Amino acid sequence: MTNKSRFLNVPVEPFRIDPELRADELLQRMERISFQGRNLAIAHRVWQKMLDDDVTIFLGIAGALSAGGLRLIIAELIERRFVDCIVSTGANLYHDLHEARGRRHYLGSPQADDAALASERIDRVYDTYVDEEEFIDNDNWIAGFTRSLERRPFTSREFLYRLGGHLWETTGQDGILTAAYRANVPIFCPAIADSSIGMGVSQARQTMAGTGQIDVIGDIIESTNLVIRRPRTASIVLGGGTPKNFINQACVQAEFYSDRVDGHRYALQIVTDVPHYGGASGSTLDEAKSWGKLASDADQVTVHVDATIALPLLASALVRSAADRAVRRTRPQFEFHGREIRLDGVRFSSDVFEDRP
Amino acid sequence: MTNKSRFLNVPVEPFRIDPELRADELLQRMERISFQGRNLAIAHRVWQKMLDDDVTIFLGIAGALSAGGLRLIIAELIERRFVDCIVSTGANLYHDLHEARGRRHYLGSPQADDAALASERIDRVYDTYVDEEEFIDNDNWIAGFTRSLERRPFTSREFLYRLGGHLWETTGQDGILTAAYRANVPIFCPAIADSSIGMGVSQARQTMAGTGQIDVIGDIIESTNLVIRRPRTASIVLGGGTPKNFINQACVQAEFYSDRVDGHRYALQIVTDVPHYGGASGSTLDEAKSWGKLASDADQVTVHVDATIALPLLASALVRSAADRAVRRTRPQFEFHGREIRLDGVRFSSDVFEDRP
Amino acid sequence: MTNKSRFLNVPVEPFRIDPELRADELLQRMERISFQGRNLAIAHRVWQKMLDDDVTIFLGIAGALSAGGLRLIIAELIERRFVDCIVSTGANLYHDLHEARGRRHYLGSPQADDAALASERIDRVYDTYVDEEEFIDNDNWIAGFTRSLERRPFTSREFLYRLGGHLWETTGQDGILTAAYRANVPIFCPAIADSSIGMGVSQARQTMAGTGQIDVIGDIIESTNLVIRRPRTASIVLGGGTPKNFINQACVQAEFYSDRVDGHRYALQIVTDVPHYGGASGSTLDEAKSWGKLASDADQVTVHVDATIALPLLASALVRSAADRAVRRTRPQFEFHGREIRLDGVRFSSDVFEDRP
Amino acid sequence: MTNKSRFLNVPVEPFRIDPELRADELLQRMERISFQGRNLAIAHRVWQKMLDDDVTIFLGIAGALSAGGLRLIIAELIERRFVDCIVSTGANLYHDLHEARGRRHYLGSPQADDAALASERIDRVYDTYVDEEEFIDNDNWIAGFTRSLERRPFTSREFLYRLGGHLWETTGQDGILTAAYRANVPIFCPAIADSSIGMGVSQARQTMAGTGQIDVIGDIIESTNLVIRRPRTASIVLGGGTPKNFINQACVQAEFYSDRVDGHRYALQIVTDVPHYGGASGSTLDEAKSWGKLASDADQVTVHVDATIALPLLASALVRSAADRAVRRTRPQFEFHGREIRLDGVRFSSDVFEDRP
Repeated sequence: MTNKSRFLNVPVEPFRIDPELRADELLQRMERISFQGRNLAIAHRVWQKMLDDDVTIFLGIAGALSAGGLRLIIAELIERRFVDCIVSTGANLYHDLHEARGRRHYLGSPQADDAALASERIDRVYDTYVDEEEFIDNDNWIAGFTRSLERRPFTSREFLYRLGGHLWETTGQDGILTAAYRANVPIFCPAIADSSIGMGVSQARQTMAGTGQIDVIGDIIESTNLVIRRPRTASIVLGGGTPKNFINQACVQAEFYSDRVDGHRYALQIVTDVPHYGGASGSTLDEAKSWGKLASDADQVTVHVDATIALPLLASALVRSAADRAVRRTRPQFEFHGREIRLDGVRFSSDVFEDRP
Repeated sequence: MTNKSRFLNVPVEPFRIDPELRADELLQRMERISFQGRNLAIAHRVWQKMLDDDVTIFLGIAGALSAGGLRLIIAELIERRFVDCIVSTGANLYHDLHEARGRRHYLGSPQADDAALASERIDRVYDTYVDEEEFIDNDNWIAGFTRSLERRPFTSREFLYRLGGHLWETTGQDGILTAAYRANVPIFCPAIADSSIGMGVSQARQTMAGTGQIDVIGDIIESTNLVIRRPRTASIVLGGGTPKNFINQACVQAEFYSDRVDGHRYALQIVTDVPHYGGASGSTLDEAKSWGKLASDADQVTVHVDATIALPLLASALVRSAADRAVRRTRPQFEFHGREIRLDGVRFSSDVFEDRP
Repeated sequence: MTNKSRFLNVPVEPFRIDPELRADELLQRMERISFQGRNLAIAHRVWQKMLDDDVTIFLGIAGALSAGGLRLIIAELIERRFVDCIVSTGANLYHDLHEARGRRHYLGSPQADDAALASERIDRVYDTYVDEEEFIDNDNWIAGFTRSLERRPFTSREFLYRLGGHLWETTGQDGILTAAYRANVPIFCPAIADSSIGMGVSQARQTMAGTGQIDVIGDIIESTNLVIRRPRTASIVLGGGTPKNFINQACVQAEFYSDRVDGHRYALQIVTDVPHYGGASGSTLDEAKSWGKLASDADQVTVHVDATIALPLLASALVRSAADRAVRRTRPQFEFHGREIRLDGVRFSSDVFEDRP
Repeated sequence: MTNKSRFLNVPVEPFRIDPELRADELLQRMERISFQGRNLAIAHRVWQKMLDDDVTIFLGIAGALSAGGLRLIIAELIERRFVDCIVSTGANLYHDLHEARGRRHYLGSPQADDAALASERIDRVYDTYVDEEEFIDNDNWIAGFTRSLERRPFTSREFLYRLGGHLWETTGQDGILTAAYRANVPIFCPAIADSSIGMGVSQARQTMAGTGQIDVIGDIIESTNLVIRRPRTASIVLGGGTPKNFINQACVQAEFYSDRVDGHRYALQIVTDVPHYGGASGSTLDEAKSWGKLASDADQVTVHVDATIALPLLASALVRSAADRAVRRTRPQFEFHGREIRLDGVRFSSDVFEDRP
């Protein structure tokens, strides 16, 4: 077998049941099986490596994670600083706000009679229901908040920081927005106009013309500067979508202005889309290397599985296996003062791309 | 068989090969087979019905359609007014602009050595390559154009109309942006910040602070008013993503302000995502009914297939079967004057939601 | 909210991380989230209900589960009688035999250079390698065993019982074949000719003409009689394929001969295929009701996830939450004497469909 | 651009609509676009190359193609000898027989009330219905035919040849079974026990013990000898499943006995499964090379699309572009005499693997 040794090195170790295993121990055993089980176990390792290294960890969240019951996991990941910067769809923030304001989502059925639901103004997200009338109140609340802001453009990052602060003061409830506010973790929402958050903002104009200017172009600059200033980065993506691309785009744009940037050092994506239709959500991490979104020697893994299975397992494992690493690690320190942002104590432009330091 | 007649009405008619059939005739035969073949044939019928009715037809384009060779199909659909309003990802507009400016995409391989591509600065989109250095020139061109605009917020719709105009004057080339400009068909790009179009815009600020304000919240108001003014609508979605949601959101928002709106009358989506992970891209059109995005009795069909197969076939069929209907139909007439927009001759606010007329 | 109460009953309960949770506790928390996470939790409940009821539990295994490291989980499920009857692809049994005979599978990469692997005679199963030369020895072993049998037709069930016995006597190793042999749990392999097991059997004829008659038609009769005799059944399917259909077909066939049969009382499938292409692997459990494969009021759930993630979690949970139920439950008792089979002490024809008792 | 020329050679040529194009012309234009559209166009080319070369062309059919309206396409491909040997699931042959006997499948809905269908004994295949009571008559017909055969084992190939002959004599109708019978094209059905064909055969034993011995192990030998005798082969697979593996297995087995065999020279698969869950249906053609199922330099393409879209288009294109090639090509000539089979005039064992000639 001498000849073959370069391929046949580490045998598959059939998984043996031990009912007392915790999530991290389950995943440790899954490292030696195959297919997506192995990949989920590798994801656990890759995330641990991110925590051991001095990198800024981006987390992208797309798909109905908040409606689907994962918002408090993400809040805890923020609070414990397993992640440093969030890029989200608007929907995940809206459904987070909905629950922080004391409303609920409900268990439903994908075989529902949608005409009946419509007649009772209940909205369905696959197997989950929500009361549309409660949304109106959310929208009014967001519109009111928007009108309370100064009359100038806000990046989505600054807007969401202020929204999180207002939500925390009003409700004192845990959630993505409030945890990020309290931990000084920035949230970007580049596609905010494509969400109920954006709809609420737009309604502010009905009584106050010209209010609610969200400077999403400023978000590009700010996220890019974050990478220019701290060029070692990592990307964790749940579900693809605009967050996946926005996190990668920050690297590509940063490379235009700094030769110290050359792609994420680590990347982990949990997606259900596939590569062969050419869409960005399903694209491989290897493809990302061709663009310089990812370093050529990056530690990376893609897991093809629904986040509602992967994240409870992965986050439970991580809190057990790596809580101390999250405490010890060099966390990027953010401070937010109006439009201004400080990273590790140094001011950081949100209007002009930084020259390489 | 009396009892069963309510279920067993129309037999499957096995497809018989006739090599002389054109696309519309192929699809006609596929109406009597099963699964996605039948659905693609139904899509052809549903689109015809849209053309026969007096509805505003929205087209959403997500996925790498322009890079993948479908941009001139979309341009022709715009030009012939098989569609009335476009909602697009930024990438589809950027890759359209890239080719309108005389550059190309290239046939490549999904098994490429991405490190080798990266070292030569070639970007890969699954099986398609593009020269990254040519992108720099595009970005500069977009930045220069951005700086040439007045210093005020532009909705993505207004910005893209102006960009299309500049592109047409500069190049005289067909494409999505130029066809929409010439046909006075609005293009919305709510997630413009998550794209190379947005990156180009952001670079304008490097030499002209505060330029490039894209008022994506204004896009919500404008798209909503379009529905309030003309409440009979239809939705065609290629690939899901932000365009799918934005087109639906316009109905939901419009219902807040007008009781004449109750969801798209027709809906046709060509998607490869599936419903059971809860994401918006794969969500069913039935689910859309619960939200009021779609009328409860809407004529609708979902086709699960890559758009690079579906669209060449469907558009070829449509031009043969329905070119005259596209000419005869009542097309909504748009005029664009700066921030102002006129629909069928009547001014239309982009700042305030219209009261129901 | 009186009106809405019929839809809005049980709220989603956002998952809260507790790093000390075991698999069953993780799943218990996932019952109140959404999408496939909820479905996996429901699968745990449905399996528990099977164990509480007096039903014969069929387990179908397709996909590369043995090569992928799940064979000892299945062996333990057999041994503890969480299942009563196996229907398998040939490949899962062959790769099980490969490891029982002391050989291994190896961790590999899906990006392997397959020409290089081919030149070293290493076979790849996605991210897993195996030494093709070791297969030749397996094949000879199977051929030798086949020649040792009486010269008469064997159902796959009888053949595999004998093969399992020989494997156990030779190796004393745990695995699917040996566990089933020792627990008197029948294994059916209707597509045995489409596998390396079948290839090994076929090679027996090279030196002994006419040997290796596998009476797969007899398997239909035997599996059907199993249902006729014990009409309350449950179906657990991993991966779809021929096992899924064969388990369902037994119900359909049994209904021809007995009016006491009307479909599985419980059904749980873990599949990655989707329904909309019309294939059997991805077909819904609702569709199965139309055929009478499933009782109209059956307790059922489909989980769309890779079995290498689902099964380690689900089996670990089950051993912790339901080991005692598996001991206490009324297990169907099988005895195998040559072609004859006894179920709960009563002889059971494998040649003629039983009349309803 | 000198440096880049090795990657940037052939530009994408945006598809331009021409409503008069026939299927082959549509596909010709799709060769220069991307993703699955390009792959479908390549499939057309690869099939043409098969016809130009001197290879035995295997066609595997899985999924509900016959129920779904594709059976007459396959019949025509057989009749015109675009293919030389069929490997099928039992279901595709059963539903073919159902229609050849004058019964129909019906257009239905995937949202059907399955309990209502069950109560009227209507079986559903996604969006297609069939009358279960008509199946009983088919089963009796198959059982009667089975009893009419000599009392000896039949390979599925021999059994199906005889069944096709009986069906042709009885009905005179076109279809897969009858076309194959008339064209002397062999059909293998290795998983016949997992289908209604097998169920019909099994019912023959009710009144004639021991009848209906299907020698599926003999099928392995026969299919292998076909490859040993004519080592240049090509594989066309619709839908994966047992046919895909059986066609590949014939090559692997043939290599054991002949060093003139080294995998299919051409391979084309149209599948909807994906590789990353490790199952055989979705496995890549590259992976097949590691096993020697495919020659390392084989011309190959995978198209990810539903066969109900791909096959009508591809077969229509082929009949227009390559009908003459199918006439001119060197077709393997089969003759069937009882268990004996002749290939190009030379007897061919179905009991013993041939030595290399």
